[in-house]
Amino acid sequence: MEKRTNRQWLLARRPNGLISVEDFRWNESGVPAPGEGEVLVRNLCLSCDPTQRGWMSRDTYLPAVAIGEVMRSFAVAQVIESRDARFAPGQLVHGLFGWQDYAVARDTPSSPLLPVPDGVSVERALGVLGYTGMTAYFGLLEIGRPRPGDTVVVSGAAGATGSVVGQIARIVGCRVVGIAGGPEKCGWLTGELGFDTAIDYKSENVVTRLRETCPRGIDVYYDNVGGRVLDAALMRLARGGRIVLGGAMSAYNEDAQVPGPRNYLQLLIQRGRMEGFVVLDYVHRAGEALDALASWLREGKLRDRVDVQRGLENAPDAVARLFRGENRGKQLLKIADYPS
Amino acid sequence: MEKRTNRQWLLARRPNGLISVEDFRWNESGVPAPGEGEVLVRNLCLSCDPTQRGWMSRDTYLPAVAIGEVMRSFAVAQVIESRDARFAPGQLVHGLFGWQDYAVARDTPSSPLLPVPDGVSVERALGVLGYTGMTAYFGLLEIGRPRPGDTVVVSGAAGATGSVVGQIARIVGCRVVGIAGGPEKCGWLTGELGFDTAIDYKSENVVTRLRETCPRGIDVYYDNVGGRVLDAALMRLARGGRIVLGGAMSAYNEDAQVPGPRNYLQLLIQRGRMEGFVVLDYVHRAGEALDALASWLREGKLRDRVDVQRGLENAPDAVARLFRGENRGKQLLKIADYPS
Repeated sequence: MEKRTNRQWLLARRPNGLISVEDFRWNESGVPAPGEGEVLVRNLCLSCDPTQRGWMSRDTYLPAVAIGEVMRSFAVAQVIESRDARFAPGQLVHGLFGWQDYAVARDTPSSPLLPVPDGVSVERALGVLGYTGMTAYFGLLEIGRPRPGDTVVVSGAAGATGSVVGQIARIVGCRVVGIAGGPEKCGWLTGELGFDTAIDYKSENVVTRLRETCPRGIDVYYDNVGGRVLDAALMRLARGGRIVLGGAMSAYNEDAQVPGPRNYLQLLIQRGRMEGFVVLDYVHRAGEALDALASWLREGKLRDRVDVQRGLENAPDAVARLFRGENRGKQLLKIADYPS
Repeated sequence: MEKRTNRQWLLARRPNGLISVEDFRWNESGVPAPGEGEVLVRNLCLSCDPTQRGWMSRDTYLPAVAIGEVMRSFAVAQVIESRDARFAPGQLVHGLFGWQDYAVARDTPSSPLLPVPDGVSVERALGVLGYTGMTAYFGLLEIGRPRPGDTVVVSGAAGATGSVVGQIARIVGCRVVGIAGGPEKCGWLTGELGFDTAIDYKSENVVTRLRETCPRGIDVYYDNVGGRVLDAALMRLARGGRIVLGGAMSAYNEDAQVPGPRNYLQLLIQRGRMEGFVVLDYVHRAGEALDALASWLREGKLRDRVDVQRGLENAPDAVARLFRGENRGKQLLKIADYPS
């Protein structure tokens, strides 16, 4: 094998609050060789996701990243060398390849290698036609179970997942209220994406605005943020309402334990349900979601937006953009050339 | 109609903390006459339930009791006079008849008059063969959905509902852990009721004991108390675990808003669900529950205990007993003679 360098970001310490470059250590090493049943891949584009902030700090649905370990990240990569007959050199695959140029990986149920289908771009394979789209699809439809005419509220609505949640809700016949930060994001929701209403949590009172915009209550609330917005949605829950726990952006940077939803007894009063899910559990049903999402994209019913930063050296900052609210759509980090 | 006095307890003010007799006003008035479609009943026995504390303070699944209004209570009463052809004088009925000797009532979907079946005692009609038993039955089986071999944890386990929840869980083949206050109650759970384990929250560390007694996690947690016990159960939730919100004894006496369950994101990590319900929604299925509960009683698989206080004048104290942990089984207040 020719001599190549594998540039990496290792986790140096558990971050305190918003992540900074000091939380990671730059490393350059040789490129490892794949063992039997493994593949060597070259990363093309990294996915930047709020859940990575959790992985840096604590065990969640995946164990915390160990100090000194390569920072975990979803990515699309090209197979360079394969010792698994199901994968061929040149093929594009999606997996947990980390913040590095090269990775050795194995296809396992808990960390699957997913081939990128022909005709799907690298960037969409990390966004609307990847786990992001699947998260929105299964979270809304399987956990939230919206019915036509329902009022669906989504927070983090201008984010990669939230924007797809709201559009799917519209496609299945719901009224959709999005909660996002700032006039540009809110305008995008009601303008380009066809949300019925947008609430700017930075300048508006969310409790008051939910009362105005959801006169019959909230049938499905898809929560990406937690905190006060979750409490506001609980107070407005309709009889039999469903809350989908997609994440808690507001909590991920807090070291002190954040308060729980103090209005949780609304679940009792309104006969409501709050339920969490992890998209990795739905990988066996990926085809169903990706077929539907691809059709909606083709028909112009679903729109996506990607925000592509460049250069592996910028990985910490690319993730920090999510928490500063700077990303416009799915945040990606392109680290090698690929056909767009 | 002969001249009779209707003794009543009216709500005098919103209680602050544990209720006291000063929160109510004793009143004596004439006995009202039923209008068309109404019945006049004489109360025999009042049900004492934690949910009454909520009714005194705020709108919940029912509106708050108004200041100056007769305190709301479930009761079993005898029909004295009927202007509804479906009810005959002498018949025993269950309904929301309040803290008073006589009540005029109408059978409505939101406040049904339920005939007490032949062979069911007044006291069991308010307990295991009434809403208490139905609450346990539907809450555990419909919301908790236990499977044989599951680990089921119930708090308030020596209470009227909790003790039935745990016994039904055992009947359907689950391991059952009860959480209660004090050695007498805990001994009753593991001795007479056949719970696998009891945790005394007054003298034991609930987090530690749940770790020891639920090595594979909690599949179903039936919560009657909220607060720190709910947080402890969340931390021990098994993959796909279900939390049934039956109430929040620990919160009912607090005027300041109590903290929410700070560990709620365990629902996301463990793909769990937290769901509330109100037994009034299941009245149309009462027969199914009451048939099952009556069979289990006959077969000796299910045991009940009633704690009967006497005299309408003691109504405030009878409810306060629940919050002081003094009741042993279902708390009742007998206010007239009836065949036992």
